[in-house]
Amino acid sequence: MALSDDFRDVVARKRDGQELTGDALRSFILAYARGEVGDPLAAAFLMAAYLRGLSPGETAAMTRAMIDSGRVLPLDGVSRPKVDKHSTGGVADGVTLVFAPLAASLGLAVAKLSGRGLGHTGGTLDKLEAIPGFRTALSPDELERQVGRIGCAVAGQTADLVPADGAIYALRDATATVASIPLIAASIMSKKLAVGTDLILLDVKAGGGAFMKTPEAAAELAGACTDLAAAWDRPCRAAVTDMSQPLGTAVGNALDVAEAIRVVRGEGGGRLRDLALLFAAEALTTLAGRAAAEARAEAARALSDGRAADAFARMIEAQGGDARVVEDPGAILPTAPVRRDVLAETTGYLESVDAEAVGRTAMALGAGRVKKGDSVDPAVGLEFFPKVGDPVTAGDVVARVHARDDDGAARAETSLRSAASWTEHPVDPPPLIYGWVGGATP
Amino acid sequence: MALSDDFRDVVARKRDGQELTGDALRSFILAYARGEVGDPLAAAFLMAAYLRGLSPGETAAMTRAMIDSGRVLPLDGVSRPKVDKHSTGGVADGVTLVFAPLAASLGLAVAKLSGRGLGHTGGTLDKLEAIPGFRTALSPDELERQVGRIGCAVAGQTADLVPADGAIYALRDATATVASIPLIAASIMSKKLAVGTDLILLDVKAGGGAFMKTPEAAAELAGACTDLAAAWDRPCRAAVTDMSQPLGTAVGNALDVAEAIRVVRGEGGGRLRDLALLFAAEALTTLAGRAAAEARAEAARALSDGRAADAFARMIEAQGGDARVVEDPGAILPTAPVRRDVLAETTGYLESVDAEAVGRTAMALGAGRVKKGDSVDPAVGLEFFPKVGDPVTAGDVVARVHARDDDGAARAETSLRSAASWTEHPVDPPPLIYGWVGGATP
Repeated sequence: MALSDDFRDVVARKRDGQELTGDALRSFILAYARGEVGDPLAAAFLMAAYLRGLSPGETAAMTRAMIDSGRVLPLDGVSRPKVDKHSTGGVADGVTLVFAPLAASLGLAVAKLSGRGLGHTGGTLDKLEAIPGFRTALSPDELERQVGRIGCAVAGQTADLVPADGAIYALRDATATVASIPLIAASIMSKKLAVGTDLILLDVKAGGGAFMKTPEAAAELAGACTDLAAAWDRPCRAAVTDMSQPLGTAVGNALDVAEAIRVVRGEGGGRLRDLALLFAAEALTTLAGRAAAEARAEAARALSDGRAADAFARMIEAQGGDARVVEDPGAILPTAPVRRDVLAETTGYLESVDAEAVGRTAMALGAGRVKKGDSVDPAVGLEFFPKVGDPVTAGDVVARVHARDDDGAARAETSLRSAASWTEHPVDPPPLIYGWVGGATP
Repeated sequence: MALSDDFRDVVARKRDGQELTGDALRSFILAYARGEVGDPLAAAFLMAAYLRGLSPGETAAMTRAMIDSGRVLPLDGVSRPKVDKHSTGGVADGVTLVFAPLAASLGLAVAKLSGRGLGHTGGTLDKLEAIPGFRTALSPDELERQVGRIGCAVAGQTADLVPADGAIYALRDATATVASIPLIAASIMSKKLAVGTDLILLDVKAGGGAFMKTPEAAAELAGACTDLAAAWDRPCRAAVTDMSQPLGTAVGNALDVAEAIRVVRGEGGGRLRDLALLFAAEALTTLAGRAAAEARAEAARALSDGRAADAFARMIEAQGGDARVVEDPGAILPTAPVRRDVLAETTGYLESVDAEAVGRTAMALGAGRVKKGDSVDPAVGLEFFPKVGDPVTAGDVVARVHARDDDGAARAETSLRSAASWTEHPVDPPPLIYGWVGGATP
């Protein structure tokens, strides 16, 4: 009776290390999405899946069931080549803010569904909402029309796209079952595969500021994701990139936007620009047939000649934001009442900077949220200027804190000082990119 | 933030194979009992515990927390030596019905808190409630007074004794995490250790009709239970006994009572009597210092000279039941409208009989419940007469079905025929007892 007739049997088989059939796993996930399997049994399944793993076939079946739990977004009305770019989450990771208008300015289309920040990593929606008036709640039709018209849009996930993912993610968060590579891959890729795009680019972060702490673990996640894309016959490439230090300089919502604007206007350099160009060139190579060097040069030109900045302004305007921000961010973006410069105490080289600690410092200032639903302060945050290996002289401004009050600024300075370490000997900088996983054409 | 500050960290550590501190596990279980940890996180914990196991220290900490979730029952007012006897559940396992009055008639005290049947195994409370008027809901005070006065009582678990066990068991049942030896041991022993007794006797069943399918698995459970008793400095012995075939003859509530009465009156023999005598002799040896052979003879005398039957009648009367049942069970117990004899088709020996299938046949007749809360029919059930190795002649009555109607009786006959297999060659009967685990004096 009991076990063999019901979904407990699915859980018992996973518990015992058996491979589930696609049908069994699909029925289980869809029943959970409909509320016919309760949270406790689903939690037991997730822990069994965490400990026993999921085969590629099981991961694909779970992903497909999650997609089938809601509606999909084919984007058939968009005629440009469509590219999606997703980051697994890092600190000072404003690549999406640069990539979306840059790709649009190159003739591609980017319909980006994004999330809010949680913990020490920032969220693209929070950042854009620092621009006065910017609206991230677009209907699927609005999103598609805007992308068709100006080439890019960044909006919040709609509730009916992969609803099972939201429910399962919340349950994983509540039950210590987040850190499972197949479950992470299914979560990421269900949302990517539910949207009609010609190329999926993934930025899988590796290092102390990322979920995956080593390049090897990041490559494993990247492989699980590109395997899923291959099972759907969807072109997908994943770069494993460094998150042992913050990617850009700014950590905070308005500060992130201001930094992205500098890069989009061709004024800012550094790793944020390099990574945005890397993904844009990859998209041009795959979708427009350009040679790699040519693609990179074309993307760099779009930053320097104002086309990317124009695309960014059009996107901001289309979504209700004050587009003058692209010309004069300082006049439009909110600013924090207290600024505090952090000066180098000695002369030497930056040996390391703990990206997660930097992210947590910004969160403590009010830039991020401890738990879902918390509000964020768009104005606060910090800038941390040097990169690992950079020389500094005693008295240099190495960081700047943007705080609500002096106490918060002082605490942030203390946190930042213990997050960074300095040495008198030259230090080799870490690579920006560890490598690519997956073929663009499966 | 998140993980390190809350109970998810306890689950994450168990998930990762770390041994939990007693304090951490205790806090988690007590928080669950207070409703501060939700079912999903507890379910994830149970699956992690299922797959990673629990050390003896963890099992003891969990057991202690479960006990501390409610009140205990010291039975200080009972002056006789107190013994508890618990079976892990089998088919035609009426040992408790015989043991309680038998031990009482030998000067010992038995305060038995019992459960209801579920699935193919019967429950002592259901059986006793087949006696008209019998009341199993006794308050702790009533229970103690009755045991003090007449030496035995059998009552339902009260809600405030080990309340965490009921909640955890229901969650395990819902999440495919029942079959874990440490979790089973904690469940059994928390209820035994919460009651003040001088000796705990366990009957751990092994075989097709039991939860533990092999003597080895049963011995492992027995060891986990006796280890817990040792950690409490409580005398405890566990017998691993055979459940490859039904223990007694009757499977059904009134039928079980009638069979127990025959044994208590010294009229019935067989394995049910042997096992009841084994436990009674063990109790006399440990608690009254008798030599083994003397103890067994004394217990057998109490069955043949009417003392055990008197004790049974007094217990039934004290609990509101019609005590005339001990003299004339046929006149007092409910009977089913349809009886159907099952005749042997060939001459030979009983080779095997699937105890679980026999139990399920009785359940299908209405004697047991598929799920908690179902009602049971006290009158229906079956008797299966031969034991493995017994010779039969074609035409012998090998079983008798007691059913509500002819259709049910016919289906039961078909089930019983496929549950048994016969051979022309002599067959060695399985042992009744595989061995003892644990020392009476830790």
